[in-house]
Amino acid sequence: MIILSLESSAKSASVAISKDGALLAQSFQNSGLTHSCTLLPMAEDLLKNAGLKISDIDAVAVARGPGSFTGIRIGVSAAKGLCWGADKPAVGVSTLEAMAWNGEYAPEGSIICCAMDARRNQVYNALFTFENDSLKRLCEDRAISLAELAEELKQFEADIVIVGDGALLCYNYLKNMLENVSLAPEGLRMQNAWGVCRAAKGVQPVSAAELNPVYLRLSQAERERLEKMKENK
Amino acid sequence: MIILSLESSAKSASVAISKDGALLAQSFQNSGLTHSCTLLPMAEDLLKNAGLKISDIDAVAVARGPGSFTGIRIGVSAAKGLCWGADKPAVGVSTLEAMAWNGEYAPEGSIICCAMDARRNQVYNALFTFENDSLKRLCEDRAISLAELAEELKQFEADIVIVGDGALLCYNYLKNMLENVSLAPEGLRMQNAWGVCRAAKGVQPVSAAELNPVYLRLSQAERERLEKMKENK
Repeated sequence: MIILSLESSAKSASVAISKDGALLAQSFQNSGLTHSCTLLPMAEDLLKNAGLKISDIDAVAVARGPGSFTGIRIGVSAAKGLCWGADKPAVGVSTLEAMAWNGEYAPEGSIICCAMDARRNQVYNALFTFENDSLKRLCEDRAISLAELAEELKQFEADIVIVGDGALLCYNYLKNMLENVSLAPEGLRMQNAWGVCRAAKGVQPVSAAELNPVYLRLSQAERERLEKMKENK
Repeated sequence: MIILSLESSAKSASVAISKDGALLAQSFQNSGLTHSCTLLPMAEDLLKNAGLKISDIDAVAVARGPGSFTGIRIGVSAAKGLCWGADKPAVGVSTLEAMAWNGEYAPEGSIICCAMDARRNQVYNALFTFENDSLKRLCEDRAISLAELAEELKQFEADIVIVGDGALLCYNYLKNMLENVSLAPEGLRMQNAWGVCRAAKGVQPVSAAELNPVYLRLSQAERERLEKMKENK
């Protein structure tokens, strides 16, 4: 089974192709260019250089959130477009679950703390651990304050490894409160499409129409609209 | 300083762009296609998607060996071509030193054992350790038998982490003899161009003409020729 995966939940973007669970090719960008310019050309180039056509792919997987609203929208839209055009099924995976695979280097039993900067002193977060080389989820994806997260992490005696684009923010907050936290090394910190390929395994594919972003929060525009509607009542 | 790096020392190929020590973009392939078809298109696509031209690059770095004779030749030739065409300096780095950066996740003081399959029961190998976030070389690059390597590794009490395309071969040989060896996780095992960018730091650039492959051994054709010459004497 060949999976093409897209990841554009934060500042960097990446595309990966896996075949029967092994990484065939991956392209990663942190150039500061907008994902709307880079993501689809990256996918096209990667397929071409790997000697594949979109018709060879069995499914398109995408990090469907949480994350940057614009980034998630671009990723999900690109995946929908590819699936519609080539009549392929889509697989939406949690951005946080995809990045948890970065923590695979940590000793079994470690807590993988996935963190994305959600602004307003919050992180998008979920906790995982590896059991027999597979990922076990310890809580649902959520937006949580750093203070609440710190309180919750106190229960764990095992090593806690922090991954994701919010890892440094999270680590700087936690390092003086908890002795057992560490930051994933630079090369293993950021979410990437290879993690999306891995998280896609076992997820039921859906049609392009059924693929939806998961923001976990209302966007700023929606919040402001609701507040205005309240005021006008 | 912007560095474009090429890595094609074994079955996989990759290209990376770093700016002032940070990873801007990387493309990785393990599709089984020959590097002579994939490497230069990957470099072109990566530059284009990162919004860069070859004229924006300050140097081209390449894993100059040891490794697959054909792979190394393709990488070094591609780097020479890019440097000649764009009038840029070249940086040749040890394939083994580049892959040692994969071991950055291991606790400080660990031994990073770099291994490439050199056939004939040998590995291309060098040993490193991290001190203050930089890499310290413990021996020269060499072709060594697995038995000799095992004997040498007995001196170390620290954890030994094995990286590279020969890591699994090496680990399977060593795991019953040494308790302190472990295999780098899959996503951190193979040599890649980001490691070449990192190893290039501080290496004196040379002209395209001065860039040369380092094979460490004679090729099979050269060995056979020498044997024939002996016989004919």
